[in-house]
Amino acid sequence: MSKSTLAVIAAVSAATGAAVTAAMYSLRSSDKKTTEIITTSTKTLIKPPVGAAAPVSASQVFSSTRTAVPAAAAALNAPVNPAGLFEYGFPGPVSDIASRQALISSFDRRLRNPQWVVEHITPASLAARDGDRKNSAFREDDMVPDKFRAKLKDYFRSGYDRGHQVPAADCKWSQQAMDDTFYLTNMCPQVGEGFNRDYWAHFEDFCRRLTNTYPSVRIVTGPLYLPRRDPQDNKFYVRYEVIGNPPNVAVPTHFYKVIFAEDAKSAAGGPVAIGAFVLPNAPIPNEKPITDFEVPVEAVERASGLEFATKLPVQRRKRLCADTTCSLVIKEYADRQKAFAKGGGSRLN
Amino acid sequence: MSKSTLAVIAAVSAATGAAVTAAMYSLRSSDKKTTEIITTSTKTLIKPPVGAAAPVSASQVFSSTRTAVPAAAAALNAPVNPAGLFEYGFPGPVSDIASRQALISSFDRRLRNPQWVVEHITPASLAARDGDRKNSAFREDDMVPDKFRAKLKDYFRSGYDRGHQVPAADCKWSQQAMDDTFYLTNMCPQVGEGFNRDYWAHFEDFCRRLTNTYPSVRIVTGPLYLPRRDPQDNKFYVRYEVIGNPPNVAVPTHFYKVIFAEDAKSAAGGPVAIGAFVLPNAPIPNEKPITDFEVPVEAVERASGLEFATKLPVQRRKRLCADTTCSLVIKEYADRQKAFAKGGGSRLN
Repeated sequence: MSKSTLAVIAAVSAATGAAVTAAMYSLRSSDKKTTEIITTSTKTLIKPPVGAAAPVSASQVFSSTRTAVPAAAAALNAPVNPAGLFEYGFPGPVSDIASRQALISSFDRRLRNPQWVVEHITPASLAARDGDRKNSAFREDDMVPDKFRAKLKDYFRSGYDRGHQVPAADCKWSQQAMDDTFYLTNMCPQVGEGFNRDYWAHFEDFCRRLTNTYPSVRIVTGPLYLPRRDPQDNKFYVRYEVIGNPPNVAVPTHFYKVIFAEDAKSAAGGPVAIGAFVLPNAPIPNEKPITDFEVPVEAVERASGLEFATKLPVQRRKRLCADTTCSLVIKEYADRQKAFAKGGGSRLN
Repeated sequence: MSKSTLAVIAAVSAATGAAVTAAMYSLRSSDKKTTEIITTSTKTLIKPPVGAAAPVSASQVFSSTRTAVPAAAAALNAPVNPAGLFEYGFPGPVSDIASRQALISSFDRRLRNPQWVVEHITPASLAARDGDRKNSAFREDDMVPDKFRAKLKDYFRSGYDRGHQVPAADCKWSQQAMDDTFYLTNMCPQVGEGFNRDYWAHFEDFCRRLTNTYPSVRIVTGPLYLPRRDPQDNKFYVRYEVIGNPPNVAVPTHFYKVIFAEDAKSAAGGPVAIGAFVLPNAPIPNEKPITDFEVPVEAVERASGLEFATKLPVQRRKRLCADTTCSLVIKEYADRQKAFAKGGGSRLN
């Protein structure tokens, strides 16, 4: 059955004319493989990696068991106990959170990309130079269970860069910090020319230059998968590529950054300058002002399902691009490559 | 700026030829609205609904604060503290879990659909008839913060049914249980004719008939968004519609059910019959065998990012469709409507 399912779904689609010919992520696993993976997963649950949040277990959420019907249900004489299913395990979703020197990341097991990656830069952290990108290598993150992990082979010949969410160039202050940025849990597939190697790099440079004005800058970066209107039928559709074979890692349509720029008074309850930006994962001409991509924080929240700054009262917020000048400094790629070579290594995959 | 961002992104797309003309979920909110929504969200965090899992707060995950650099980082003399961002709030994602009499649901704030909905049926629960579907009404779930909530207006004139994940017909044992199934957190946009009102309904009937063989049946149901190969460029893409204006609720490409059929020995460590099925959200001819849609549980796990039965040892598992006959009984829609009318109300929106 498992081998034929794909073909059958395809046949149904063809028969009905519906565009639902599905490529399952994997229909080819033998029972043996399933066992191995479940074992791996259990191991992860038993021994969470250092710094990772423990997955929410059913028993934390529901105290009821099959033998002990929940008090509320019993009182109402309910003939069923849906929570009993969790005796077999809680479905999740689990966000694999990695807390490293350079960054903290939260991983989306369905799309195989981070949901967000958090970093902190200061004038001092950027001035220190003890890490060199040429000593770092891209690597899979075995904090994530194998069946949900982004793999190096998924990116190989995909046409996309392994795009750092927390930039390597922000983490030259130690080799460990630099290495931390090379986990695939800090990567998304990004368009290389015109984006990752160009406009997005200039945008990252803009973030670093904010430390000339603010003594502490916190940045949340992550992918988005946004709908667009189809001119044919005027309806909205989300469409994104999935790289790997079988398909494994989603290619985001956009990326966001939410920037918190702090001054000396911010930690003591003073104002914080906030800027939110959403850029398409596509070539962007260098002459485009970065302010064209500025959005309200809430727009990123609605698009990502996340919330930023829920504990920061509105009266403490000010708009970054009203507080300082938001503009990029364009360094051509060849020049930057030279600069990187000095700092060590190439931006290319 | 907020009004022009969309146009600007569109212009960039046009200029570069990239298909990234984005419709943000909302770029129109005023600051005032943001405030209200954050207040709502905070309220939810302070007073979680009965049975809901408390969202993971940053302090549970990270004990570090801005003033107290984490021990590990301090020991390594790290010049930065990424976790300091969580002083402004933890980004999430939060799965809004509703624990009701009839079901437990987990909500995806990004796609505005449930991730999974869990139910339990028995011969006794299906025999009881104290609930009537004509007394129930579809309703938005205010357990979910407004900005992430699926709305009735999103479904209105969308062309899709409000498709129950836990079927109303499984919950006739009380009016409250029946009502529980009508929250939009138990719905996904489903193709009506040929699917929700036909093949999918027959499949739900199959699940109920399992109680003729098994004294206890547990079912997890939810949406999937699966890639398919584009014949033009041979690459894999996920494409799904998003209904509402502005676009709000994703239209799944497929739906899964993972079924756990228990006998008298299951609760005492005996075997459990498991069946996993993935059906396209599209018309399916009634003559298609349901076994054509059977998949390994792991296929649903890879596609959904969830895990089922991690605590159920492999030696306790048996394959449902080897243990019993998996086949549908086709009742035509008109006949079923009559039956429903007796039981109360229509399946239609």
